[in-house]
Amino acid sequence: MQQEQTQQSLPREIAPRAWIEDIKPQIDSGAFPIKRTRGENVRVRASVFADGHDDVKALLCYCTPVGEWHETPMARRANDVWEAEFSVEQTGTFLYTIKAWIDNFSTWQGEIQKKFAAGQQVTSELLEGAAMIEEAAQRAETPDREWLSTLSIKLRSGESQADLVALATADDTCGIIGRYPDRSNETVAGVSLAVTVEPERAGFGAWYEIFPRSVTGSPEKSGTFADLENKIPEIVHLGFDVLYLPPIHPIGRTNRKGRNNQLLATEEDPGSPWAIGSEKGGHKSVHPDLGTLEDFDHLLAAARAQGLELALDIAFQCSPDHPYVREHPEWFRHRPDGTIKFAENPPKKYEDIYPLNFDCKEWRTLWQELKSIVIFWIDRGVRIFRVDNPHTKPLRFWKWLISEVRREHPDTVFLAEAFTRPKVKYALAKVGFSQSYTYFTWRNTKQQLTEYMQELVNTEVREYFRPNFFANTPDILSEYLQFGGRPAFMTRLVLAATLSACYGIYSGFELLENEALPGSEEYLNSEKFEIKPRDWGKPGNLHAFIAKVNTIRRTNPALAANRGLAFYPVDNEQLLFYGKRTENFSNILLVAVNLDPHHVQDGWLQVPLEALGIDENEIFQVHELIGDSRYLWQGRNNYVRLDPESCPAQIFRVRRRLRTEHDFDYFM
Amino acid sequence: MQQEQTQQSLPREIAPRAWIEDIKPQIDSGAFPIKRTRGENVRVRASVFADGHDDVKALLCYCTPVGEWHETPMARRANDVWEAEFSVEQTGTFLYTIKAWIDNFSTWQGEIQKKFAAGQQVTSELLEGAAMIEEAAQRAETPDREWLSTLSIKLRSGESQADLVALATADDTCGIIGRYPDRSNETVAGVSLAVTVEPERAGFGAWYEIFPRSVTGSPEKSGTFADLENKIPEIVHLGFDVLYLPPIHPIGRTNRKGRNNQLLATEEDPGSPWAIGSEKGGHKSVHPDLGTLEDFDHLLAAARAQGLELALDIAFQCSPDHPYVREHPEWFRHRPDGTIKFAENPPKKYEDIYPLNFDCKEWRTLWQELKSIVIFWIDRGVRIFRVDNPHTKPLRFWKWLISEVRREHPDTVFLAEAFTRPKVKYALAKVGFSQSYTYFTWRNTKQQLTEYMQELVNTEVREYFRPNFFANTPDILSEYLQFGGRPAFMTRLVLAATLSACYGIYSGFELLENEALPGSEEYLNSEKFEIKPRDWGKPGNLHAFIAKVNTIRRTNPALAANRGLAFYPVDNEQLLFYGKRTENFSNILLVAVNLDPHHVQDGWLQVPLEALGIDENEIFQVHELIGDSRYLWQGRNNYVRLDPESCPAQIFRVRRRLRTEHDFDYFM
Repeated sequence: MQQEQTQQSLPREIAPRAWIEDIKPQIDSGAFPIKRTRGENVRVRASVFADGHDDVKALLCYCTPVGEWHETPMARRANDVWEAEFSVEQTGTFLYTIKAWIDNFSTWQGEIQKKFAAGQQVTSELLEGAAMIEEAAQRAETPDREWLSTLSIKLRSGESQADLVALATADDTCGIIGRYPDRSNETVAGVSLAVTVEPERAGFGAWYEIFPRSVTGSPEKSGTFADLENKIPEIVHLGFDVLYLPPIHPIGRTNRKGRNNQLLATEEDPGSPWAIGSEKGGHKSVHPDLGTLEDFDHLLAAARAQGLELALDIAFQCSPDHPYVREHPEWFRHRPDGTIKFAENPPKKYEDIYPLNFDCKEWRTLWQELKSIVIFWIDRGVRIFRVDNPHTKPLRFWKWLISEVRREHPDTVFLAEAFTRPKVKYALAKVGFSQSYTYFTWRNTKQQLTEYMQELVNTEVREYFRPNFFANTPDILSEYLQFGGRPAFMTRLVLAATLSACYGIYSGFELLENEALPGSEEYLNSEKFEIKPRDWGKPGNLHAFIAKVNTIRRTNPALAANRGLAFYPVDNEQLLFYGKRTENFSNILLVAVNLDPHHVQDGWLQVPLEALGIDENEIFQVHELIGDSRYLWQGRNNYVRLDPESCPAQIFRVRRRLRTEHDFDYFM
Repeated sequence: MQQEQTQQSLPREIAPRAWIEDIKPQIDSGAFPIKRTRGENVRVRASVFADGHDDVKALLCYCTPVGEWHETPMARRANDVWEAEFSVEQTGTFLYTIKAWIDNFSTWQGEIQKKFAAGQQVTSELLEGAAMIEEAAQRAETPDREWLSTLSIKLRSGESQADLVALATADDTCGIIGRYPDRSNETVAGVSLAVTVEPERAGFGAWYEIFPRSVTGSPEKSGTFADLENKIPEIVHLGFDVLYLPPIHPIGRTNRKGRNNQLLATEEDPGSPWAIGSEKGGHKSVHPDLGTLEDFDHLLAAARAQGLELALDIAFQCSPDHPYVREHPEWFRHRPDGTIKFAENPPKKYEDIYPLNFDCKEWRTLWQELKSIVIFWIDRGVRIFRVDNPHTKPLRFWKWLISEVRREHPDTVFLAEAFTRPKVKYALAKVGFSQSYTYFTWRNTKQQLTEYMQELVNTEVREYFRPNFFANTPDILSEYLQFGGRPAFMTRLVLAATLSACYGIYSGFELLENEALPGSEEYLNSEKFEIKPRDWGKPGNLHAFIAKVNTIRRTNPALAANRGLAFYPVDNEQLLFYGKRTENFSNILLVAVNLDPHHVQDGWLQVPLEALGIDENEIFQVHELIGDSRYLWQGRNNYVRLDPESCPAQIFRVRRRLRTEHDFDYFM
């Protein structure tokens, strides 16, 4: 009886011997894809080994979005780790997995060499090898088939063992037989892991946020899409890639908020753009004061023609006047007294906003309608969305929505405005958001910035979470900006623009706007509740500085990614010193920033010579890109002095010296 | 058309909102179980959270080997990490997973408290709460049902809001309603993770290896099971728990190795016990010179009666004379000339051994037969097996064999003699081996020992890999022992016995045997190839020292596990200073070892006062257990001087001072 049981317990087929473990990158056991942008590489590592002393071979297998599988050999590193990479040249979902097998022929080659070198007879071994070569010949194509057959006959010829061993282990033999391995004993890793490949803009871009209604000469008169269109050349001149507009939809009347978030609006108050919906329409309409849908189309086309991509706001919530409230009361939460619940975060109340109930009985129609909003704007040409408060909606809704949209439109980019706990922020990235707002605005000291960047760049987080470092937002005027004056704005701009491949500012930053509601990080007279005309040419503005920094970003590919970031020592706690480089070292930048907006700071930078492949005695040129100065440096320690009043940061491009036969100095 | 597609793409059911991530411990995405011994705890951690601001609850669910599921609430730690533990009181396989849900009632409690505190009207909120309490009443049993119904009516009564809010959030209310949560929106983690629970001996034990044939007065006459039985009281006196015997089966004649591994044996040479099988039988027979199966049974019973467990060797290989070779030639590899391949690791040859071909066509009959060998000895009472060279047999064979055996006999312990690459060693542990040989013999310096222990104790490895620190084996006489004299033996014994909960010595160690084949780590005149009578009472022997160390192990539970190990600073590179403690601090040991067998070394130990909960100013007693001396220490820095000639190590038990009203000193 027991014997019968165990008889049944044998595996149906004998499992292959090669073992594959610990494939990386891999997020949560493969539950979520990693992310790349088009043209990037995916470097895959895994532990591959087998029992005994036999040779193992491993292949990285990957599948393109159109379902084509490719294989590339993996290289063996220390401690049974194998590595290979592939590049992703289309948007969509790639898959990857690993195959491995015991290579009996190369095992045999290694053994026969050792035996022969030890003076042992290898007659029988040669016959074993001949048999394996015959099998390979069966798998081979002409002319390799004949070549292998001839080799096999030769090994059986009884000629000099020295010659035959040399022949059997020659490079030619390895090369030809290597094309026809016996993979009948192949192990395939149990999982196929996924890579979401997004457009370049998902990973690299400078964002500029502006309220279209404020592009006007008077607080009484709303700016229009046409007014904004006229301003685009200025924004382009500043070097921005993405122009993000807060919601452009009709704004509700009921419970409209007044200036500075007052409970009661006057007749003149325009209301918060996030209180979406009125009798003029909802999420698929535009505010009549801004213009028409056709005006919007015109703006979008004009921006794109000048290299500027429009980003729209997705705020899945409604003003009490939104058509959904009448047409679909079932999508909202109702109180015992029959009224609809407005948004709240007790004791705070948002009386002008009704949240949607994503878990309502009619969730199917709600979810489809919300998807149709995104598709509506995609159909008008929008490709980038900034999603408002995604952390207050179910993660699984976003997972569904984003994968749905991406299936048909893989070039869509989603930025999560997720100011929430770290795990939730990361979970939103896992379920599909391309980018996310971060804690950057609250990281000001050397230790804070260093630790935060380590988490973002040197942990598994980097595989799925792309930070977008906004230096300010309509909701966040940080204390550092409030009290640090012009130097603070310059410092934060350089940090945002060089630490993170994606960064942004909200308009007014370039004009050093820094008046806050007392005791808060809210702007005084916040643009969320009023039209705010600006003097764009205000003295002291940062236009030239911003344009310079954005030009440096565009011309130095090291700044287009976060992976090459490293921090280096400097003997002053107020100075931050870090570098970014491309993978192939073709572009190497070193950045020194004075974090103290009030005082000149100086110190000795410790240049990481080994990491840059520079000799102690070598003289190398650094080109300071903001001020366009060049310095010759030598050795590890080099001095900087940063005066916040002139410029609190320096960005050095490292140029290696080339010596010629004439001993002239060139720098590449 | 597109609309239809997306319509279909909606999930069938709305997914619950709670999110469960990163459950630990978890090996390779749950592909392998973690390990515990009976009576230990499994502490489980996971990230649990949800979108929004709602309260989350989490349960740890675990299943005993007989299929009973239990639930225990998890406690919330920082950063959305939750934690709970369960203890495993039976051998076999336990499962664990996590469930989580949104707790709407406690969310409501928090909100109403905040709103009321902010002076807001909560009339509608009280009605919402009443509805939830009514629902809970539906789920409740008498008398809670009535209690809840009454509460619900009360909340609708319109009485003072202050009173009702206080009532709704009172401890009583929380307690009763907490028993009937609404778990309809529950998330269940997708995986059930497994724990292999083994007998205590799998995790804690002192091993002694002896060749039964050497328990004799003459090299010409084999010792017997009966001779060994007579020696058991001595081994018990030394404090060992496990008595491990190299193979006890008939030894082959063909190509038998002579003394010192010579190719040709003389008539008198007994051969290697690992060349298993002759016309007298194979793996289920005993060598006639040792006695009969009944003698073996007698030995086993006598040992067990004295508290000593027998461990047998499993070496799945055959001498050319093994019955399998005749009866099952299909289980072996054949060369082109028709002969069977002997074992080799080119250019080394093992002509007296035929390996089995685990991948042969007839693998099913072979695997079953090998399993029947293990079952044969289990049926005779053996519970511990030391497996020879498991890394030269397929990992998947071991996975099958060990799980097969464990299913019926969960009390079986397997020690892997895996001297191979780290990944293979760890993979053997993952597929089921209880314990493994290690690199301990080659880790001699402070840095080597510290780094190796960190890997074993402070990484995921500790969840599945249990080291067994053999200080020597018949194959390994380390250079340290060859040249370090008596102090080296004492040092290595203390290190093995205190760093690892499982350790062992091979007989002769206690007699300081240290003569090696020149230029190797092989014993001169190795017992593998000859009968080796010993003078067990040889002057200078370590009997008393070993007995003392083993007594310390048995009376200090801190040494029964590896988790509580930590290394502490000492200002001398030749001194190693570390501690072990039980989880509840009931047993705290500090160990100082002189790694230099040639010179006295002294230094200042830095006692980790904070970790031990001792105040800077407190005077505490340490009891040195080897020499049985007591010292009063104060503060962080305390001096030791270790003379290798007398004793190169000290093991301090830390005793905390208890003050009484009379100011007498007691030490617990």
